Amino acid sequence: MKKELKVIGKPTPKLDANIKAAGQAVYGNDIVLPNMLYGAILRTEHPLAEILSIDTSKAKQLPGVVCVITADDVDVNNISYKRDHPILKKGKVNCIRDEIAAVAAETKEIAQKALSLIEVKYRVKEGIFDPFEALKEDAPQINEFSTDEQNKNIAHAFHYEHGNLQEQKDKSVCIVKRRYNMPRVTHCCLGTCAITADYSTVENRLTLYSGTQVPFLYQRDIARALKMEPSRIRIIQPVIGGGFGSKLDMYPYEPICALLSIKTGQPVQIVYSREEEFLASPTRQPMVMDITTGADKEGKFTFREAKIIMDNGAYTSWGATTPFVMMQTFSSLYQVPACLFDAYAVYTNNTFAGSFRGYGNPQATFALERNIDLMAEEMGMDKAEIRLNNANFEGEITGQGLQFKTCGHRAALETVIDKSGYNKRKSNDNSGRYKKGIGLASMLHVGGGAKIYPSDGCGTTVKFDSFGYLTIITGSTEIGQGSETVLAMIASEELGVDMGKIRIINTDTDIKPWDVGVHASRTSFVAGNSLLGAINKLKNKISPKAAQLLKTNVEDLIYENGLITSRKTGESIKLDKVVREIHFRAPNELCIESYYYEPDSEFQDKGYKGNVSGAYAFAAQAIEVEVDTYTGNVKVLNVYVAQDVGRVLNPLGLAGQIEGGVVMGMGYALTEELIVEKGRVLTLSFHDYKLPTACDIPEIHFYPIETLDKAGPYGAKGVGEAPLIPTPPAIANAVSDAIGVKIDGLPITPEKVLKAMKKKS
Amino acid sequence: MKKELKVIGKPTPKLDANIKAAGQAVYGNDIVLPNMLYGAILRTEHPLAEILSIDTSKAKQLPGVVCVITADDVDVNNISYKRDHPILKKGKVNCIRDEIAAVAAETKEIAQKALSLIEVKYRVKEGIFDPFEALKEDAPQINEFSTDEQNKNIAHAFHYEHGNLQEQKDKSVCIVKRRYNMPRVTHCCLGTCAITADYSTVENRLTLYSGTQVPFLYQRDIARALKMEPSRIRIIQPVIGGGFGSKLDMYPYEPICALLSIKTGQPVQIVYSREEEFLASPTRQPMVMDITTGADKEGKFTFREAKIIMDNGAYTSWGATTPFVMMQTFSSLYQVPACLFDAYAVYTNNTFAGSFRGYGNPQATFALERNIDLMAEEMGMDKAEIRLNNANFEGEITGQGLQFKTCGHRAALETVIDKSGYNKRKSNDNSGRYKKGIGLASMLHVGGGAKIYPSDGCGTTVKFDSFGYLTIITGSTEIGQGSETVLAMIASEELGVDMGKIRIINTDTDIKPWDVGVHASRTSFVAGNSLLGAINKLKNKISPKAAQLLKTNVEDLIYENGLITSRKTGESIKLDKVVREIHFRAPNELCIESYYYEPDSEFQDKGYKGNVSGAYAFAAQAIEVEVDTYTGNVKVLNVYVAQDVGRVLNPLGLAGQIEGGVVMGMGYALTEELIVEKGRVLTLSFHDYKLPTACDIPEIHFYPIETLDKAGPYGAKGVGEAPLIPTPPAIANAVSDAIGVKIDGLPITPEKVLKAMKKKS
Repeated sequence: MKKELKVIGKPTPKLDANIKAAGQAVYGNDIVLPNMLYGAILRTEHPLAEILSIDTSKAKQLPGVVCVITADDVDVNNISYKRDHPILKKGKVNCIRDEIAAVAAETKEIAQKALSLIEVKYRVKEGIFDPFEALKEDAPQINEFSTDEQNKNIAHAFHYEHGNLQEQKDKSVCIVKRRYNMPRVTHCCLGTCAITADYSTVENRLTLYSGTQVPFLYQRDIARALKMEPSRIRIIQPVIGGGFGSKLDMYPYEPICALLSIKTGQPVQIVYSREEEFLASPTRQPMVMDITTGADKEGKFTFREAKIIMDNGAYTSWGATTPFVMMQTFSSLYQVPACLFDAYAVYTNNTFAGSFRGYGNPQATFALERNIDLMAEEMGMDKAEIRLNNANFEGEITGQGLQFKTCGHRAALETVIDKSGYNKRKSNDNSGRYKKGIGLASMLHVGGGAKIYPSDGCGTTVKFDSFGYLTIITGSTEIGQGSETVLAMIASEELGVDMGKIRIINTDTDIKPWDVGVHASRTSFVAGNSLLGAINKLKNKISPKAAQLLKTNVEDLIYENGLITSRKTGESIKLDKVVREIHFRAPNELCIESYYYEPDSEFQDKGYKGNVSGAYAFAAQAIEVEVDTYTGNVKVLNVYVAQDVGRVLNPLGLAGQIEGGVVMGMGYALTEELIVEKGRVLTLSFHDYKLPTACDIPEIHFYPIETLDKAGPYGAKGVGEAPLIPTPPAIANAVSDAIGVKIDGLPITPEKVLKAMKKKS
Repeated sequence: MKKELKVIGKPTPKLDANIKAAGQAVYGNDIVLPNMLYGAILRTEHPLAEILSIDTSKAKQLPGVVCVITADDVDVNNISYKRDHPILKKGKVNCIRDEIAAVAAETKEIAQKALSLIEVKYRVKEGIFDPFEALKEDAPQINEFSTDEQNKNIAHAFHYEHGNLQEQKDKSVCIVKRRYNMPRVTHCCLGTCAITADYSTVENRLTLYSGTQVPFLYQRDIARALKMEPSRIRIIQPVIGGGFGSKLDMYPYEPICALLSIKTGQPVQIVYSREEEFLASPTRQPMVMDITTGADKEGKFTFREAKIIMDNGAYTSWGATTPFVMMQTFSSLYQVPACLFDAYAVYTNNTFAGSFRGYGNPQATFALERNIDLMAEEMGMDKAEIRLNNANFEGEITGQGLQFKTCGHRAALETVIDKSGYNKRKSNDNSGRYKKGIGLASMLHVGGGAKIYPSDGCGTTVKFDSFGYLTIITGSTEIGQGSETVLAMIASEELGVDMGKIRIINTDTDIKPWDVGVHASRTSFVAGNSLLGAINKLKNKISPKAAQLLKTNVEDLIYENGLITSRKTGESIKLDKVVREIHFRAPNELCIESYYYEPDSEFQDKGYKGNVSGAYAFAAQAIEVEVDTYTGNVKVLNVYVAQDVGRVLNPLGLAGQIEGGVVMGMGYALTEELIVEKGRVLTLSFHDYKLPTACDIPEIHFYPIETLDKAGPYGAKGVGEAPLIPTPPAIANAVSDAIGVKIDGLPITPEKVLKAMKKKS
């Protein structure tokens, strides 16, 4: 007998909404420790130069300066998963954000002043800023720690294939080949990077107050960087002012802050200014994609061929591994019998790319969905029909081995086609100034974690106190996505405990069980399942006692409204009373249980084949735009979003994620670009880097598709990244629809629109 | 096959020694929170008075004052287990420490200035300061919330009896009746009382940084006082600068600090000055004891009769319940067939008594051991022999129902008699100025907790991280007794993990499992057993995997030096590798386990019968003194201590507890007294209140008795309170031995010695 859901699916405000609105949340930059110093970092002025000398003597003499360090003062390992990134640079700088020296001082002002007193002499050189230039045989080696056998300027290469490409090419009646150019954008977290390091000299213990999204991997990485034992490092995660993937890797400022604390024996805090945030944050991976796709005479897709050159920048961060996700889109979004995928992350003297919500999928989906529109146009097919004809389906196992046990792809497409009135749209009136258009796009993303590490799991400990309050100690991390609220809702649903009587503990590696981190849209799925496992163990302890007290059977018990009730007799007992009976009567036990959940997914083989996620999310968007043909300005009028979320857990939180994602996609599509010229970042403020603001936001119509995946908590799948992914191609397709031009890159600025219209006419 | 102990029993420095020595420990007064205010409390100037008016207007106008509260501003419940103690006093004050008003201000100085601007008008009355006066029929009722049926000035009454008293009296050939007067002493914690309250208005959550010894009971008590839900209150325990029982109860300053934070919405901190610490701390229960004891012709004890009047002060704290422990000494220390025990805590207008290391046992043992010496003298028996003849024995079940499954009483007595050369001592030369004497005393105390609450248990969660470090989350509390170190030693012993790879988490009620608190010498016993239970569960998870990897049986595994080794094959595997194998290979589990340990003890019946503790500790001391007959000064020369500790866990920590206890007992015996005259405390500094200092400390010779109690961890029993208990009677008996006077009270000041010698001659 399945009980009706009482909490899950009901709009529930975020648990942390009040403290955030009241200004009581403690963000990384709010941390104050006794005796704390302020750190600051000197960066190079040149994208490529030899360092001839660094003179810190004047800085050291400045009153209030406690410590100045350069590479010569520290014994550390390179960072990044390719170990190609020195924390402090020695002998040479390779990109404009390179760290030369760092200062710890009694005030922020003294620290800044001290930086200005450090004298660095350079021999400036001409850098390489174009990855195609870097790939040339005679190009000098950019990163001295590069290990690629074939070309020292390749940081990372991916090759994937499935099916018989030639056979599928031969079958094809339409082949579209196109090059796409994807720009640099950056996360624009409203809370800039902040870290506080507190090293205890007598304990040899380092506590880091860090915004990391992956505390347990971070602990290991910081330890490797500093040559410390990982367990001597405790990570505490203050409230985070935005993550979006930017805190998935560790960057030099973090071990630098730790080094300053180790050297001084005092806590040290480093907080980026907004300018530093633009200069020294990772970006979404910029790339050039050559995409070839085919279809047979029925309009069924036959093959895809992708060759991708990514500008890696001077050092490697997770951006270089985004092909891992991109290949999934090429191999598996819509049915396709053959796929060949090659991607190269190429060193340049530009700033480097990291991970960013969607992790390559926005780029891949853009290219693929643009190509589909072009194929439809070439074949004279309806753009909705060609998509529906090729949609993924439940039970499908793709060429890459992804297993779609549930699949809302077709339903999502049908929903947005229907809701947007796509089929009823009028033919464009080409005479006026303002031209309307509509575009479609869909996407596939992991929805049940991604096993890219030997474990993709999450641990949870649940503990009732004597008064019936529940503490959930979860390994998972809250970065604003609302996971705390969803976890509390799950516990409230299962145990009948009021939401106000649940607290979440999730910010301290010394206390919380292991979790791989917040990425890959995994938290509600993985942490939710982990919590359900722990609650199940808890109920196995509580129910027999309750059944005994109520003189009924365990199977007849309902947990609701703080009570445990017998379905048979209708009699109830307070849950907290049962907890106390267990605790305070022999054999005296506490209601504490732990559980570790590991998704039923596979670590992929060397050919990247395998079912990497416990579930898959699908989404489609139909977007209506209006193009001002005088100014080239694109206005988004309506966004229709249908997304296979498995099950709606918290409609309010879900709406927030969908809307935030769509707006982030709009920024990528229309206005945002981190402009880097000859290695120098030109957009160092929100004046120059144009984020969508409240007045740009269109009507967003959201239609959740509930496929109730057996693997997910209540059937839910991951949600977080998906909503931004189809937005740029849907906008590009809509612009193309409106004014009949080809859109091959982002952002679709008025300048580019006018240029394209001019070229067309 | 029992493996040799590698860690247990080896001298091990305290884990927190370094941070304390380096000044890096964060005590309650070191807490700094953003936006924090400083609280201060206005106390009455009169032990008894009507409050006519309180005018806070001038204080409120002082710049920097944020809040001033009196009883009229708050809606709270009375505190204390008798609910007889208003947090802020209204209409009437009853003792000199009474709280009238409180201030929160931006600085400590402003807060103090504001107190001086509060104008209180009183009608002063003559108080009652002698409990015998208070017991008179016509005495006015002192505490308006008193509930005793027979006499409103009785705060609490105890009646206990076993055996046939008359029959035993009839058998007796010697009956000694004596009155003893026991003074007020106070804990003299070097860290004064400190509390920081941080109330979140939007979350309705109160966090208290408190030195409480009983965080989970405290949470409940504060909640009842403030009319809040207990679970909305989080207790965080900073490093404590001394407890000794003083933080077992909650006092008005604690809810007052919370009220100031609730009223202001800002964190508020209250730290006592040393003067306030002397004025407004609880004391050891002062009392007058009429003790009658008998012995038969063989010198076997026959009966004991005790009538005890305790000066309760104006309000009730745990001091009133010390008869609970005292009666154990009268009923069960040495074999005794009959016992009648009556004790009354009587209200006066003095300051009130709380709990203090030993909890009444120092007083009871003093009276009993003095009476034994007097009986021996009267009967012409040897004082050692009479004690040995009546000593407790293994397997004894006492008249009160205490079950001595192991018993080192006789062994302890024999040891100190032997080591002190008691039997070889020369007869006193009565001609010189300096006279030497030797005294004996022993004691019985709970050594396996004390079930005075429905559960006397402790919960523990253990968690291995991926690098083989162990986190122990224990419900127990560290107050300097070294329990963290002992717990880490136990884990190191059982798991073969280096002490440096173990961390203890024990300071946050939101995180740690329930524990009744640190009192009754219970922590190593109860928390130690709880940890062993959790480790056992952990090994049940780890061993099968290790056995599989080593191709051996679970029974053959040894955990040592970070390795798991097969006894059979000699092959080893790193423990952390096994932990990772469990975590990172299917079915993927974490090494986290929780356990709750409840001692095998009984909640006593209404007649106080029952086996209240899981084990019992015994000790004996022989103390040699030299009395200066010109000045009356008593110098302690040698202290011989033998104590049944079950098993020595950490010799270094144990020595610290023994030495600290003996010195505390010496202070009680010779120099300490909180002098209260007509309700006013006269000893408000260390100039006037004489604590023993380093140069007073004699040679302390310690001989642990290891009885290996099956109930204790490795056989260990509780240790903490015992060493101070026999010290005062042993010193008194020694002084009596030296100069032939009767010592009937403490402290044995030079003045009293001279007076007694004069009286004798």
